[in-house]
Amino acid sequence: MYAAMWYAAGDIRWEQRPDPVIEEPTDAVVRIVAACVCGSDLWTWRGARPPADPHPMGHEFVGVVEQTGAGVPGLAEGDFVIGPFSISDGDCVYCRRGLTTSCRHAQWWGRPDPDGRMVDGAQGQYVRVPMAGGTLYATPELPEPALIPALLTLSDVMSTGHHAAVSAGVGPGTTVAVVGDGAVGLCAVLASVRLGAERVIAFSSHDDRQDVATRFGATDIISERGDDGAAAVRDLLADQGADCVLECVGTELSMDQAMAAVRPGGRIGYVGVPLGGARLRLGTMFSNNITVGGGVAPVRAYLPELMPDVLAGDLDPSPVFDLQLPLDQVADGYRAMDERRSIKTLLWP
Amino acid sequence: MYAAMWYAAGDIRWEQRPDPVIEEPTDAVVRIVAACVCGSDLWTWRGARPPADPHPMGHEFVGVVEQTGAGVPGLAEGDFVIGPFSISDGDCVYCRRGLTTSCRHAQWWGRPDPDGRMVDGAQGQYVRVPMAGGTLYATPELPEPALIPALLTLSDVMSTGHHAAVSAGVGPGTTVAVVGDGAVGLCAVLASVRLGAERVIAFSSHDDRQDVATRFGATDIISERGDDGAAAVRDLLADQGADCVLECVGTELSMDQAMAAVRPGGRIGYVGVPLGGARLRLGTMFSNNITVGGGVAPVRAYLPELMPDVLAGDLDPSPVFDLQLPLDQVADGYRAMDERRSIKTLLWP
Repeated sequence: MYAAMWYAAGDIRWEQRPDPVIEEPTDAVVRIVAACVCGSDLWTWRGARPPADPHPMGHEFVGVVEQTGAGVPGLAEGDFVIGPFSISDGDCVYCRRGLTTSCRHAQWWGRPDPDGRMVDGAQGQYVRVPMAGGTLYATPELPEPALIPALLTLSDVMSTGHHAAVSAGVGPGTTVAVVGDGAVGLCAVLASVRLGAERVIAFSSHDDRQDVATRFGATDIISERGDDGAAAVRDLLADQGADCVLECVGTELSMDQAMAAVRPGGRIGYVGVPLGGARLRLGTMFSNNITVGGGVAPVRAYLPELMPDVLAGDLDPSPVFDLQLPLDQVADGYRAMDERRSIKTLLWP
Repeated sequence: MYAAMWYAAGDIRWEQRPDPVIEEPTDAVVRIVAACVCGSDLWTWRGARPPADPHPMGHEFVGVVEQTGAGVPGLAEGDFVIGPFSISDGDCVYCRRGLTTSCRHAQWWGRPDPDGRMVDGAQGQYVRVPMAGGTLYATPELPEPALIPALLTLSDVMSTGHHAAVSAGVGPGTTVAVVGDGAVGLCAVLASVRLGAERVIAFSSHDDRQDVATRFGATDIISERGDDGAAAVRDLLADQGADCVLECVGTELSMDQAMAAVRPGGRIGYVGVPLGGARLRLGTMFSNNITVGGGVAPVRAYLPELMPDVLAGDLDPSPVFDLQLPLDQVADGYRAMDERRSIKTLLWP
């Protein structure tokens, strides 16, 4: 098969790799139907967190089960599945609590497993899925092809935006501000609307992203940043900050923006992967009783809630995909996103 | 009257001050029945946060109303009242939400009010109470003298320990670890037991404090710190951290200890006043989905819940007071606490 491999900053290659096979009874082999490039992939692409060796890329996919091991009772050949960005056994104390990202046996796409064996990446033609019964989530039947992009967002960005909203306590009647207008931030807007927020303010200074935010139900767009941006939030909210702020970037600057936009007693839900030892100022949090929660989204645990809405046509995050490419042009997808020519790039085999 | 004034690091003086009078219709004048020294007072005493001028000290008291302005409908001369460590109008959007520390008109004992007028401190014979109707909370009748120390803890340490527990989500069946064995940490143990925690682990390496923790219902005491301390928590909790960790110190070291002791998906409730720009490592929080909440405790909002338990004899935090001094020896109280000869010093006029 062919798959995307990272070699160096800016050097992603589409190259031949061994066809995946069942190695453990709990494995499945899945044929990729659609994959995509993640904002967090870009940090690797840019070389910010280079691993020692070339390694497979991609952690978002939907696909069809080709083969299963003897220990995967819930799945069968031909099932259409969503592949969450983390691999979990579905059975440990954390999985049972719904925190699948803290699975006692967690594995990650494109990284070595506990035995040192490299796990496949999702930007390829096929993928071996460890602990497939705990990791994959199947649709009841083969979905309409038109729904595939929306289903693909559940593997990461939509579930992550939902996690930000849940972590910030978004619910009916709340006021929400979203920091970050990437695919996750936009999905966080959509998630907040879905959860009943009364007001959803999106920070964005890009026309194309503002358009998607508005389409997703943002009630207000603020293009200013920093103190001006925070002041604009208070102007909209009777001189208060927002009840809930969703931080979807991961820099100290964006967290400062979130802290400036939240009201005393409010909550920040953060899902931006923290870069370079980003830290939180405790003093500001302390004086204003700000709660900060969130982290790496337990996608698998959210799928039973979110997937039915997508299948019913009630939840459509697919507009985050504004560029579609064949998988073998994956490197162009990275470039397009890095140069902000694309919010998120969908890859078809 | 006489009151405690801060002059310089280690230099607290008991000296004559003007007798307080009603200056605003919303004021009350209260005769102090008992006051005490707070762990946070020690930072000032040591000179860590020196203000520009000599200023009054103390922010915890119980007393009897001597006089009220025309705009204090709920209180009358002779009422026995608890004085929370923050002054709030009881009427703004934050007070109505129960976040009295973020009152739109908040004032603080021993600091200038918005008009530049110095607010009295509680370590004195009398105190002028601004916004008395919003700030003070009266007992239904004069309490038994034996209950006065317990009632005094509600002005800060017991309510603050309760805030840590509430912020960390302590409830029936939860496992709790408490970082900090000062009066607040010990009250946090008591608050956790009161809220139904299944297991309450106290970090403490001092015999006297361990004794109080045990008396308050701690199920386990850990005297190790750092990684050893965190490992000891996991040994007690089936290789997991605690569901809830209560951080009651305020240093980066103690927050690191809290972060090491909490389980993935758990919550840290922090009430230690953050010292010197203490920061939180976002990376650790992110990977493990740790929520951090808390801050300066909205004492006034908790009094209707906690005071009845004290009056009924069901809640007795008074063992945190292990030294009692006359108010005019207040400087000795600071010294005793600074030298760890006393957990918390009660001051009688």
